[in-house]
Amino acid sequence: MTTAAGTARVPQEERTRLMRARLLEATVDCLVERGFAGTSTTLVSERAGVSRGAQLHHFPTKNDLVVAAVEHLTEKRATELAAAAEALPDGPRHTRAVLQVLADHFASPVFAAALELWVAARTDEALLVTVAPFEQRVGRDTHRLAVDLLGVDESVPGNRELVQATLDLVRGLGLANTITDDTRRRERILDRWADVLEKELS
Amino acid sequence: MTTAAGTARVPQEERTRLMRARLLEATVDCLVERGFAGTSTTLVSERAGVSRGAQLHHFPTKNDLVVAAVEHLTEKRATELAAAAEALPDGPRHTRAVLQVLADHFASPVFAAALELWVAARTDEALLVTVAPFEQRVGRDTHRLAVDLLGVDESVPGNRELVQATLDLVRGLGLANTITDDTRRRERILDRWADVLEKELS
Repeated sequence: MTTAAGTARVPQEERTRLMRARLLEATVDCLVERGFAGTSTTLVSERAGVSRGAQLHHFPTKNDLVVAAVEHLTEKRATELAAAAEALPDGPRHTRAVLQVLADHFASPVFAAALELWVAARTDEALLVTVAPFEQRVGRDTHRLAVDLLGVDESVPGNRELVQATLDLVRGLGLANTITDDTRRRERILDRWADVLEKELS
Repeated sequence: MTTAAGTARVPQEERTRLMRARLLEATVDCLVERGFAGTSTTLVSERAGVSRGAQLHHFPTKNDLVVAAVEHLTEKRATELAAAAEALPDGPRHTRAVLQVLADHFASPVFAAALELWVAARTDEALLVTVAPFEQRVGRDTHRLAVDLLGVDESVPGNRELVQATLDLVRGLGLANTITDDTRRRERILDRWADVLEKELS
């Protein structure tokens, strides 16, 4: 009996999981293409091909939906980031390659979607309550990843601040990239930054 | 006759100038407090105490208003930035003091207002057409100011990229600061970056 019930439940759970994923991916697409203000629950349910009732059952408000969507995409991107990190070359170009992976991350659609959420949260207290701790967690995870990738000993004074500066730099580059294609300028800056990091991170 | 007409015209011109300034400052306040989506021409005219007719005469659309407002505030902040630069100490703490002036600039309300405009322009083509060249001009002006303040010789290879990296770093710090108070972390990062710049900028 237990086994039969379990087997019967799996397809339903799987259908629910897929439906949630479709909703979250449609939300991210909306955020990237139309911004936070242009994203509505109606638009998302149409785009995902999910009924309004089912959508409201899983995500009662727009805020629930957009926060879950950015979390979903962030997890997906973290997996991609880890895979890109695995493929990094050793040797003299290693630091520069790490910077490229980080900078690409902050020039991706996940950054555009997160930026929409971030800026909306600045003036929306209900959203800020959820977004602020989420951003802190993502910030810590990204910092830890950067420390690992760069092979930094954070017990050496000044090293921690250089890793933080590196992440603030790529965040700033990401922001500059949102309205103009900034690729060539970014490459030269990352070359120079890699030189500095190799000298300074001891 | 000419003199009399001239004298009569001045108060009218002055009244117009003051009314425009009130409209632009009310717009910036709205952008900072309510974001781009929460800013409306009605709200701005009420807040500025200017009639709808007069407002529409000077700024026919919301986009005209917000772009003019961010330009207005940017000019005002540029004057303040130049004044802050005048007051900088010479000597060993000079680089650190320059970084503080730049970082404060990117942690100010003008940055929040510009960020709202910037993010809105990402998904609004009509706005982007005006905002992109404006941002490029502001970017060039800020770069020139940073070069002057830091006393950098840009003919030395690598120096230009370090100045650009510095501005991207403070932009990234500004973005991090919009939803959490980031002052202490920022101070330590700027201390470390000042050390690097003093060694690297030759």
